[in-house]
Amino acid sequence: MSKTILIIGAGRSATSLINYLIENSSDLDTKVILAEKDADSARERFPDVEVVDFDIEEEGASRNLIEKSFAVVSMLPATLHHLVAGHCAASGTHLLTASYLKDDIKPFEDDFKLSGAACIMELGLDPGLDHMSAMKVLDRLKEDDSCELTGFETFTGGLLADNSEKDNPWQYKFTWNPRNVVMAGTGYVKFIQEGRYKYIPYNKLFKRTEVIHIPGNGYFEGYANRDSLKYMNLYGLEGIDTLFRGTLRRPGFCRAWNVFVELGATDDTYELEDVSKLTHRQFINSFLRYNPHDSVELKLAHYMSMGLDSEEMYRLKWLGIFDDELVGLDKGTPAQILEHILKKKWTLEPEDKDMIVMWHKFNFLKNGEPREIQSHIVVTGEDQTDTAMSKTVGLPLAMGVKLLVTGELNLTGIHLPTEPELYNKILPELEGMGFSFSERETIS
Amino acid sequence: MSKTILIIGAGRSATSLINYLIENSSDLDTKVILAEKDADSARERFPDVEVVDFDIEEEGASRNLIEKSFAVVSMLPATLHHLVAGHCAASGTHLLTASYLKDDIKPFEDDFKLSGAACIMELGLDPGLDHMSAMKVLDRLKEDDSCELTGFETFTGGLLADNSEKDNPWQYKFTWNPRNVVMAGTGYVKFIQEGRYKYIPYNKLFKRTEVIHIPGNGYFEGYANRDSLKYMNLYGLEGIDTLFRGTLRRPGFCRAWNVFVELGATDDTYELEDVSKLTHRQFINSFLRYNPHDSVELKLAHYMSMGLDSEEMYRLKWLGIFDDELVGLDKGTPAQILEHILKKKWTLEPEDKDMIVMWHKFNFLKNGEPREIQSHIVVTGEDQTDTAMSKTVGLPLAMGVKLLVTGELNLTGIHLPTEPELYNKILPELEGMGFSFSERETIS
Repeated sequence: MSKTILIIGAGRSATSLINYLIENSSDLDTKVILAEKDADSARERFPDVEVVDFDIEEEGASRNLIEKSFAVVSMLPATLHHLVAGHCAASGTHLLTASYLKDDIKPFEDDFKLSGAACIMELGLDPGLDHMSAMKVLDRLKEDDSCELTGFETFTGGLLADNSEKDNPWQYKFTWNPRNVVMAGTGYVKFIQEGRYKYIPYNKLFKRTEVIHIPGNGYFEGYANRDSLKYMNLYGLEGIDTLFRGTLRRPGFCRAWNVFVELGATDDTYELEDVSKLTHRQFINSFLRYNPHDSVELKLAHYMSMGLDSEEMYRLKWLGIFDDELVGLDKGTPAQILEHILKKKWTLEPEDKDMIVMWHKFNFLKNGEPREIQSHIVVTGEDQTDTAMSKTVGLPLAMGVKLLVTGELNLTGIHLPTEPELYNKILPELEGMGFSFSERETIS
Repeated sequence: MSKTILIIGAGRSATSLINYLIENSSDLDTKVILAEKDADSARERFPDVEVVDFDIEEEGASRNLIEKSFAVVSMLPATLHHLVAGHCAASGTHLLTASYLKDDIKPFEDDFKLSGAACIMELGLDPGLDHMSAMKVLDRLKEDDSCELTGFETFTGGLLADNSEKDNPWQYKFTWNPRNVVMAGTGYVKFIQEGRYKYIPYNKLFKRTEVIHIPGNGYFEGYANRDSLKYMNLYGLEGIDTLFRGTLRRPGFCRAWNVFVELGATDDTYELEDVSKLTHRQFINSFLRYNPHDSVELKLAHYMSMGLDSEEMYRLKWLGIFDDELVGLDKGTPAQILEHILKKKWTLEPEDKDMIVMWHKFNFLKNGEPREIQSHIVVTGEDQTDTAMSKTVGLPLAMGVKLLVTGELNLTGIHLPTEPELYNKILPELEGMGFSFSERETIS
């Protein structure tokens, strides 16, 4: 009997994942079932695949469906994975997700082992491909006795492809969860540089950017991710002098985005008053001093010490934030309102292509001599649906499923693709499909 | 039999409260008992008063002591009042505190009424004296049919008195809970100005100050308090055009304090690494870019766009934040470390006197003509113990107790001093002791 692969959450971001598993289903003798809350839309997009109306909160029905499956890929919001994990661990069904391993999943470790199933977390792009491509080099350097690691920096970004919407001065649109983009960087940032611990608060984060040049792809800017120090243990880098993780954007993005941050427009902790009557322009004005004689543009430029004709102001104007257009919400936090305004401009059009850029820098001493390896990958989407994001998140998951089906991966309990067992099998599969990293070593 | 007045939490801030109640105890035929965790220290400071070892977490002993009392004044941290309130409500013991009425107290309303006891919250300085002095004027204007209220602004500050430590460029020291001072303004700020809702994020709060002149006392600067809009209902000001509550500091304080805010030095959400080895200078440097060739002073001045010889830098240097002195903690959040450093300079010396300033501005139309009333009070402390803060927080509470003992206040259930019943009795008592507001009306 063929093995059932259950994909929970078959939204647009799961397109590449689903297509890969469908294409391989006869070879693998598997049957793909899509479990979706919005089942009609999934049926429309995948007319030849079985689609089941699904709500993870309906415990009995969820358990039945999961029990009968060989493996489940959960594309649900991260906070719901633990419900899926409970059923999988109890019934011996493999579980794969592209989300961070959090404390709500760890308690299922023993049950996954007992029932003989694997729970592979962080098997997407970031986390996922970043772990695999970094650990492959890090492990190689760690195993080489002549080498001593001194620094590791890694940046990933989801962007608009070079030739898409040339007149968009941000060269950016939402290609993944818009809310995460609006909230990016809230909280604190920790990293270590040349042996010194460094901390950046949210209000300075988008000003403390690094310039990164990727051969053949030009310049990017990167801002720091939350807590780089967590990767000391995860990657086995205890004692390293420099450890920095960040996000890539096109040059100029961060300075302009910083205006929203410093203005308070990304705050998600309180609701604004009288939102139904609010225009874009009034939204911005509500964060500025009361002065009916000055324009919102001038007040903002002055408040943020920008020129009225600066690149930041041009980017902001392009977004329509000074327009007398109603926001179109009845209530909301600043972050929710900003997201709603941004979606009007930052939603992919049919002709738009997205792009994923990932870049690593490894510093080390080889026989005492300082050396550097840089590696990077750039992936471009096909169109608005078959995006680079969908491919780079979905294909590692799909390949993980395939390797479990064929028995090439033989794991129980909770695992991450930081392990050679996983990256040594999945990276070559990805390379076979054209997703390979360019690597160059220099004497630094 | 004389009535027992139980004061829970007899620390330094309760000095004026305790002294007033002791001085009045024979007239009132009351017996004062101090309940303190640190009973020995209380016995030393009040050798003639009964002091009981007390821990509110010990339920049985707490209940026994509270049951036998006529009234309890709780000076415990605000989060513990609900434990006291439970015992008071059950046994019919009056309760008075200087803390905000929160949701953990409200459920006791019915029990207080049933047992015939009053629970008077917010009866200190701020909240307390602010409510009373504002509502007295607001109610007068509301009752006058020829007047229409258009704006209300109110500011309070605890500062160093004019003649204390003249060489302290901040003209400030901790006179109340240091932690609250370090954390002041975290979160969001909401208010309404000329009919427009306005919001200020934490990173801009100490730059968006107002200058306030108080006749005979010079200039102050004020920054906004959290959510002024909550006072619309509390003060019956629905429909008012301008409503703003703030905190007063000496001119120049806020711009210098803002450096700590923007630097991230007041963050309380994460712990720093290797704190035991950290010096003041390294603490500041950990928020600045890595660059071993530049001085911490220059990096900070550049990061914050300040001159190297600016007033802000002078204030920061005076605090010793650039010194190679160990912080002296083993672990801590940025906020905890900053508080520890500040205490080295900002702790009252025996010769220091503190000062309380409260200022209100009421705008209204009288027969259609715009008018303005300003009222203010300035209170100076006697010394390091009998502070202005201790007096203005403790005396309203003490007078509340007295009025309950004499029967002049006859209340049950939960009350705030926004009610005429309370402010009409307590304000004259305060005036009798020399605490009166100066008021002047102008055509604006």
